[in-house]
Amino acid sequence: MAVEGSLEGYESVHRLLSDNLPPHLFQEVSRVLLGYNGGKAVETLALPASVTNEAQSANFDVLAYRFSAVPEQLRKPRIVRIGLIQNAIVLPTTDPYERQMSAIRDRIKQLVDAAGEAGVNVLCLQEAWTMPFAFCTRERSWCEFAESAENGASTKFIQELARKHNMVIVSPILERDEAHGDTLWNTAVVIGNHGNIIGKHRKNHIPRVGDFNESTYYMEGNTGHPVFQTEFGKIAVNICYGRHHTLNWQAFGMNGAEIVFNPSATVGELSEPMWSIEARNAAIANTYFVGAINRVGTEHFPNAFTSGDGKPEHKDFGHFYGSSYVAGPDASCTPCLSRYRDGLMVAECDLNLCQQVKDKWGFRLTARYELYAKFFSDYIRPDFKPQVIKDPSLDSPKENGVH
Amino acid sequence: MAVEGSLEGYESVHRLLSDNLPPHLFQEVSRVLLGYNGGKAVETLALPASVTNEAQSANFDVLAYRFSAVPEQLRKPRIVRIGLIQNAIVLPTTDPYERQMSAIRDRIKQLVDAAGEAGVNVLCLQEAWTMPFAFCTRERSWCEFAESAENGASTKFIQELARKHNMVIVSPILERDEAHGDTLWNTAVVIGNHGNIIGKHRKNHIPRVGDFNESTYYMEGNTGHPVFQTEFGKIAVNICYGRHHTLNWQAFGMNGAEIVFNPSATVGELSEPMWSIEARNAAIANTYFVGAINRVGTEHFPNAFTSGDGKPEHKDFGHFYGSSYVAGPDASCTPCLSRYRDGLMVAECDLNLCQQVKDKWGFRLTARYELYAKFFSDYIRPDFKPQVIKDPSLDSPKENGVH
Repeated sequence: MAVEGSLEGYESVHRLLSDNLPPHLFQEVSRVLLGYNGGKAVETLALPASVTNEAQSANFDVLAYRFSAVPEQLRKPRIVRIGLIQNAIVLPTTDPYERQMSAIRDRIKQLVDAAGEAGVNVLCLQEAWTMPFAFCTRERSWCEFAESAENGASTKFIQELARKHNMVIVSPILERDEAHGDTLWNTAVVIGNHGNIIGKHRKNHIPRVGDFNESTYYMEGNTGHPVFQTEFGKIAVNICYGRHHTLNWQAFGMNGAEIVFNPSATVGELSEPMWSIEARNAAIANTYFVGAINRVGTEHFPNAFTSGDGKPEHKDFGHFYGSSYVAGPDASCTPCLSRYRDGLMVAECDLNLCQQVKDKWGFRLTARYELYAKFFSDYIRPDFKPQVIKDPSLDSPKENGVH
Repeated sequence: MAVEGSLEGYESVHRLLSDNLPPHLFQEVSRVLLGYNGGKAVETLALPASVTNEAQSANFDVLAYRFSAVPEQLRKPRIVRIGLIQNAIVLPTTDPYERQMSAIRDRIKQLVDAAGEAGVNVLCLQEAWTMPFAFCTRERSWCEFAESAENGASTKFIQELARKHNMVIVSPILERDEAHGDTLWNTAVVIGNHGNIIGKHRKNHIPRVGDFNESTYYMEGNTGHPVFQTEFGKIAVNICYGRHHTLNWQAFGMNGAEIVFNPSATVGELSEPMWSIEARNAAIANTYFVGAINRVGTEHFPNAFTSGDGKPEHKDFGHFYGSSYVAGPDASCTPCLSRYRDGLMVAECDLNLCQQVKDKWGFRLTARYELYAKFFSDYIRPDFKPQVIKDPSLDSPKENGVH
């Protein structure tokens, strides 16, 4: 065990702890922080040497784990391998757009091929994977990266890979909606394992936070909370900022999702302490698997911009800390991918675990949806009166506290 | 730094890490796991020596922290000290009930007096603090511990302490509702700082999980989601199992809560990996402070009982792991109290932080409540059709996956 661990560029908190704690302490910390699946830590999954060799030669991180469920009498196990890909952009944002896009596609092909080699059935790429996360600049030129969800080059590229690997692939892009006046959307295209387009979902919740002035480019999605029934289970996509909205997570669950992906782009200063909490809570509260994905690296832009925080103009958005992971419905969780490197996360999941945990914990049984349907219907009325019980003594001269 | 840390009886994961990691690594792990408040780790708060001396002589854990907010031009800071108390029962469950109850009251008096000495303004006790958590036994005799929320001995005892310390005290008890046929409820009585009863709230979500067959004793509460406007801010109480229900947390927030307490009774095998996730997520998603409380110790009952898990009958319910903590709206969080010892957690909070984080992150602004009001109204209809988009190729002979 290393008594002194390096901090600069450490790969993940989990690896930092495993390198610096005595094994018996690391085991207990893992139990409390990452949970137990089927009474034991989430198992590591052995991958073909070809995958680990490719990861080494192509310089990306690869981790693989197994979420197991108990055998049932009336259902066979429903084993599905899900994959998450996180990556940095390849070329400077000042390079010609066509070259930037094709360099990213080349990199993605390496990672998707490794996922195929690893037997992944359902794969999700990061938010707006085709481009730098340029929305912080508020410049119009980046709109050129927008593409048709149905006929764009990125969709055709992913369809080819989906067919090649018999793999469902979720492809989050910047969508150009030509049928509706060239409107832009932040959209996840769901490609079936035969290369067919199953459908798409548009980001439901759009941030107006500091650099994330995304409504400069696209507004709230109009596709509801679709669940896509694929050959490998029912999946949904909660795009980025939607992870802060527990209602968004819940609606996908109530529509029947067994796996919900959360392709994101977020930086350390802003959200890192939330990162390990929100997707895990969603998996627990909604009794499904969650794949949380965040891009990596620091992206520098040609023109400086301000962030509405009184600080000087700057040309970058901060560090995208990666740390993609998979959380299970039983509160178990995998370690994270690297905070710095491109990576592939593979998780073999027995989808039967979802119903088993539902039947054990009974969150749906005890949810009292009627109560909340009425509450929300009342709340949205302009004359809504919050249910507040005021201490009568506040109206007496006695009062001396805060209000 | 201890290279080898003991595991047996370690107080908390946070202390285990601080004792066993080099300081620079512990700092980074804390940043990622506990978050930063105002750009730095949650500060420790100095308490009067009389408090720490009392804690030592009376053998309980005491921790104190400060959540700060930035100065505003138009509002003064709204500084409130909140307190959480966790404790074990004092006498064996086989002792006469009156003696068990008075022994617990004596212990609670020590802890509440210490909270008063520490300047706590709003204090919350643990779930059903007046009794062993005997609901696992499903025996009727424990109903004797039920009391009137308005006139019971426990309420009068707490009213006295509230008046003595000018402190709002949330007192979760087993309620006997004489006005409605002696029905039992799991109820939190909110006592004002002048000893007045402000109101009460009845547990909204009742578990049917393993040993937690609580509906044997009481059913879902009928008091809605009240927020109690006290001299020290707007507070609410999400009792125990309600922490698994994000809608319950949210309704309290939509009614204006600034501090939500979660008095609980839960054991390690079942929920420990969820414990550090759910209350923190609620604080983040709803932009308020959360005080999460869990009792400590293992309670042995006179008659053996089974747990519906096929295992042999047993006389205890497992270990209540304490670990009470306070989470802030900015994703910052205190370390936990001990997993084994009685304890008092004090957190000084500037309530202005709630609105500051709301204005920064805009979760309410971007929540799209109309969308969800409609969704829930549709969902509760028996003929609700989930929004599912099925891959057409599933109906073709090609299919070979799981369904």
